[in-house]
Amino acid sequence: MAINYSVIRNTLDFFLNDWLEIEHLCKRPRFADHGPETFAGVLDLCERMAGERFEPFNRLVDTEEPHFDGAHVTLPSATELACKAYAESGMLAAAQDNDIGGMQLPCTVEMAANSFFNAASIGIKAYSMLTVANANLLMAHGTERQRRVFAHPQFEGRWFGTMNLSEPQAGSSLSDIASRAEPDGADYASDPLGPRYRIAGRKMWISGGEHNMGENIIHLVLAKIPDAEGRLPAGTKGISLFIVPKIRVDAEGQLTGEHNDVSLAGLNHKLGYRGTVNTLLNYGEGGGAVGYRVGEAGFGLTYMFHMMNEARIQVGLGAAMLGMAGYLESREYAHQRPQGRPIQAGSSAAKNPSQQPVPIAQHPDVRRMLVAQRAYSEGAIALCLMCSRLVDEERTGTESAAREAKALLEVLTPVAKSWPSEWCLEANSLAIQVLGGYGYTRDFPVEQHWRDNRLNMIHEGTHGIQAIDLLGRKVVMQNGEPFRLLLRRMRETIARATQFNRLQPLAKAVNDAADRIESATERAWSSGNAQVALANATAYLRAFGHVVLGWVWLDVACAALRAEERVRYSNSFVAGKLAAAQYFVLQELPLVEAWLRPIERGDTLWLDLPDEVI
Amino acid sequence: MAINYSVIRNTLDFFLNDWLEIEHLCKRPRFADHGPETFAGVLDLCERMAGERFEPFNRLVDTEEPHFDGAHVTLPSATELACKAYAESGMLAAAQDNDIGGMQLPCTVEMAANSFFNAASIGIKAYSMLTVANANLLMAHGTERQRRVFAHPQFEGRWFGTMNLSEPQAGSSLSDIASRAEPDGADYASDPLGPRYRIAGRKMWISGGEHNMGENIIHLVLAKIPDAEGRLPAGTKGISLFIVPKIRVDAEGQLTGEHNDVSLAGLNHKLGYRGTVNTLLNYGEGGGAVGYRVGEAGFGLTYMFHMMNEARIQVGLGAAMLGMAGYLESREYAHQRPQGRPIQAGSSAAKNPSQQPVPIAQHPDVRRMLVAQRAYSEGAIALCLMCSRLVDEERTGTESAAREAKALLEVLTPVAKSWPSEWCLEANSLAIQVLGGYGYTRDFPVEQHWRDNRLNMIHEGTHGIQAIDLLGRKVVMQNGEPFRLLLRRMRETIARATQFNRLQPLAKAVNDAADRIESATERAWSSGNAQVALANATAYLRAFGHVVLGWVWLDVACAALRAEERVRYSNSFVAGKLAAAQYFVLQELPLVEAWLRPIERGDTLWLDLPDEVI
Repeated sequence: MAINYSVIRNTLDFFLNDWLEIEHLCKRPRFADHGPETFAGVLDLCERMAGERFEPFNRLVDTEEPHFDGAHVTLPSATELACKAYAESGMLAAAQDNDIGGMQLPCTVEMAANSFFNAASIGIKAYSMLTVANANLLMAHGTERQRRVFAHPQFEGRWFGTMNLSEPQAGSSLSDIASRAEPDGADYASDPLGPRYRIAGRKMWISGGEHNMGENIIHLVLAKIPDAEGRLPAGTKGISLFIVPKIRVDAEGQLTGEHNDVSLAGLNHKLGYRGTVNTLLNYGEGGGAVGYRVGEAGFGLTYMFHMMNEARIQVGLGAAMLGMAGYLESREYAHQRPQGRPIQAGSSAAKNPSQQPVPIAQHPDVRRMLVAQRAYSEGAIALCLMCSRLVDEERTGTESAAREAKALLEVLTPVAKSWPSEWCLEANSLAIQVLGGYGYTRDFPVEQHWRDNRLNMIHEGTHGIQAIDLLGRKVVMQNGEPFRLLLRRMRETIARATQFNRLQPLAKAVNDAADRIESATERAWSSGNAQVALANATAYLRAFGHVVLGWVWLDVACAALRAEERVRYSNSFVAGKLAAAQYFVLQELPLVEAWLRPIERGDTLWLDLPDEVI
Repeated sequence: MAINYSVIRNTLDFFLNDWLEIEHLCKRPRFADHGPETFAGVLDLCERMAGERFEPFNRLVDTEEPHFDGAHVTLPSATELACKAYAESGMLAAAQDNDIGGMQLPCTVEMAANSFFNAASIGIKAYSMLTVANANLLMAHGTERQRRVFAHPQFEGRWFGTMNLSEPQAGSSLSDIASRAEPDGADYASDPLGPRYRIAGRKMWISGGEHNMGENIIHLVLAKIPDAEGRLPAGTKGISLFIVPKIRVDAEGQLTGEHNDVSLAGLNHKLGYRGTVNTLLNYGEGGGAVGYRVGEAGFGLTYMFHMMNEARIQVGLGAAMLGMAGYLESREYAHQRPQGRPIQAGSSAAKNPSQQPVPIAQHPDVRRMLVAQRAYSEGAIALCLMCSRLVDEERTGTESAAREAKALLEVLTPVAKSWPSEWCLEANSLAIQVLGGYGYTRDFPVEQHWRDNRLNMIHEGTHGIQAIDLLGRKVVMQNGEPFRLLLRRMRETIARATQFNRLQPLAKAVNDAADRIESATERAWSSGNAQVALANATAYLRAFGHVVLGWVWLDVACAALRAEERVRYSNSFVAGKLAAAQYFVLQELPLVEAWLRPIERGDTLWLDLPDEVI
């Protein structure tokens, strides 16, 4: 059972070309060297590499999970080979400037191209993803030398990168991190690599924290600089960011061979996503790890969050592609596996036992499970690509377009992170269900997707954190202007869709849902009390996400009908998109009303209960 | 992290004594030797045994899953020791007559007592469950000698039992099974052990199919007897049932030492539930396995389904207890783990970083996840115990009470099987979420519960099969009388609840939901076309299940308030039950409306789509 990448490719092409119309980006100076052919070339390359270098080893990296013998961490050699192939393709620097060896690809194309690897083996892909995120942060906030010494080797694939935020006692609560960074000597401020500190502390959940791939690992570490009395500043405003290389380097970035004071305290043994080594790292057990401060002291979290939006879209796209992988695998199975007979038209549910068994794809409930998987997975891909397109707009659009894109991203990012994580996990569960007992065995890939996907509601900000971010911050920021802009965009789509007869019932349903979320948002904050407003934040996130996805599907349906007019895709391609839109808007969107009730009622059940009842 | 069984015990005691009022059963002749003390003694025994003999090995049986070296299947010795302890306790024969060594316990008490093992280690418990199911079937449909020879040694724990239904080419579609049973010699009909056949075929998904525990394994095998031309009869009416011992026995049940012609073709390597060996068995590769027919030819499935109702309630209770285990573990974690600060009352969502971190049980979203887990898990336990109580009524009640109980069980059994399987899986996902990254590691038990629980929507009739059973058969059987009886019972509860001021909003919500499911049922069948009626059977099952659980919680809430009046339980115990009822009825029940829309609209989206679009 292998993933049919050409089906993914068709849908990506449709989203990129017919829906998001990325050819317009090529008119902008940054992307002027590009055109449909270069974009297609990148997608071709990644599609092939994912199928050849990643997917065949996805089960292997699950069963042979990273192993620590007390001295070294061992990964399957397939992981290193896949990472090498990826680096050699140039994809690590896909979005970078030409003059440092990059391709200057739009974010939208980079995301679409990378999506193949998420479907093929997200556990292998994560190493490159983290490395690029690390190097991107340094490109945005590092000095010229920090960029050259620490970021460039990562884009070349020689070094790997990690992000060190959480600590054992402080997961989601970063204000409580206790890692210390003390100035290293009197000349600490004049080190060419940046102000030099000694770091001590423990960092938890560090993906890619230790392995033997590449020549070095660059850790980006959040820590606090103590005040004159040695006390760590309270809150997130006291957090700074440091570059801590595993092997120390000289001022020109040459490896000195000297190990920095970072040691592996242990591996986390996970439910899924096992291809990616996850570690607990101890800093400074032998006097302090040498680290170079990035930017200003006290701005560590700001720098980290600068990159977090893109990281959250990537988490969403990862979840979406796991959903897509399970969808395609269960779809193939359902069309090939004969079992049972259809219920006949007529008053009795009896079947005719003398008839030959039919493929299970003919049974209504299996059809439901396939359409639902498609609606979740393709909808999630569409959402994430739309967000990537907004990132491009923010970076290269006109000033007003960039401002609007930034505002929309504020509101949409929590959805792009959380919605695919929740619903493409559900898609994976449906994929297991389609395969029945076989889906529950490790002989088929769908159970692994389900396990792998379960991480996505946890890392890069849990579901609950996204909910508070959305309702507590994003929809009320700037007097609610970004939220109202999103509603205006939704209503533009609704107006467009109303012109297609076939989409009118869908347009009406999305319109009702948009009205409902608008009034629920007001209602949530009507007490003026954040405690009450946020009591049902997760129900709000869920409802908000479904409204956004209803809008996305309606917009995609408009594009599908336009594409149909241009005879660009097969009838069944267009019909598949319309069926998913119809399913989602007519069968899933009504849930919004039920989810919003506690908010409309001002229900504070959880707050009112004494602790001993919880 | 260990399960706090006393919390489970309190809730079981409340359900058994205050809600289901099982002391009334002791007035019946079959249970006349029992009283509150003997019931409590059985619960004490099982509570202790589950904690001492099962739970400590639950992770072990997951990591050291059954292994087949080509000759023998190896299980961890802990499995055999736990099964032995269980057998020695007499629980295998808990429901049997005194004169064959049984305890004549009511089904309700037997189920409640067994529930501890499901929470402790469902993978170990399954061996005993299957053995009892096998022996129960023989007690109901076997000859006196078959009962004595094959069932009694299973109740004594000397032999184990299995159920052989599925085949590799026929999972849910039993009419397509191809196992053959040919009369064995001219004297086949006069064997003292029952009509003797030679069985040949392949049986898939056989739990407990091979291991070295006990002295023998008794397989109950569905197969078809060919007609004079050697053709197998079509459909399920041609299926017969056979006893196939692994080691052959003489007419008195003494082991002959001769291996029957049953061989292990391989093990299934599962996502979870790994403590239970799951096998593919080949019958008759060497001439035919000797099997003794049970009852009449052609009634095999009828006999099997006679036991299936109880098996389905057991599956539901298994799912419920996995939900409960995760709830208790995540609850303990949430009250102990300090992290973050509560949002203050006031207009801003900002927090005070100088305040000490609080236990995460103080965060609203964690509280939501704990209350939801409680509502799902305790609600599911209540449902399954109520069904067990109906089983007792069917067996020992007055003629009219028995008839009503049987009717209610027809309609409720698909819900008892499917609802806990779906929603206690969700509860387990919430338990992972409460623990965050830690919940995603194998250092904590919650991820295993989630994996183990995923099987329950698949085995003993998939979710889709339950849905067709409910909407296609159960709610329309006997002109809908069993369904109307259920509605009457719901409305009796609603009337009772209305007398409590605090329950009036809940009573109204349950009443609306009951009305809605009643009219949706009519609407579903209004076309008179089963194909259309069943197009949305799974949405119907989901809605129906929530209405039933809304009713169960309302009824439980009435009992909690009555118990409060009698000062039998602590305030927080009663408040916990009321909070769960309030959460479920006010926040979850509104989903019913959304789920029923496609049915009310007569939506046939799946049926209308061409195959290539699916």
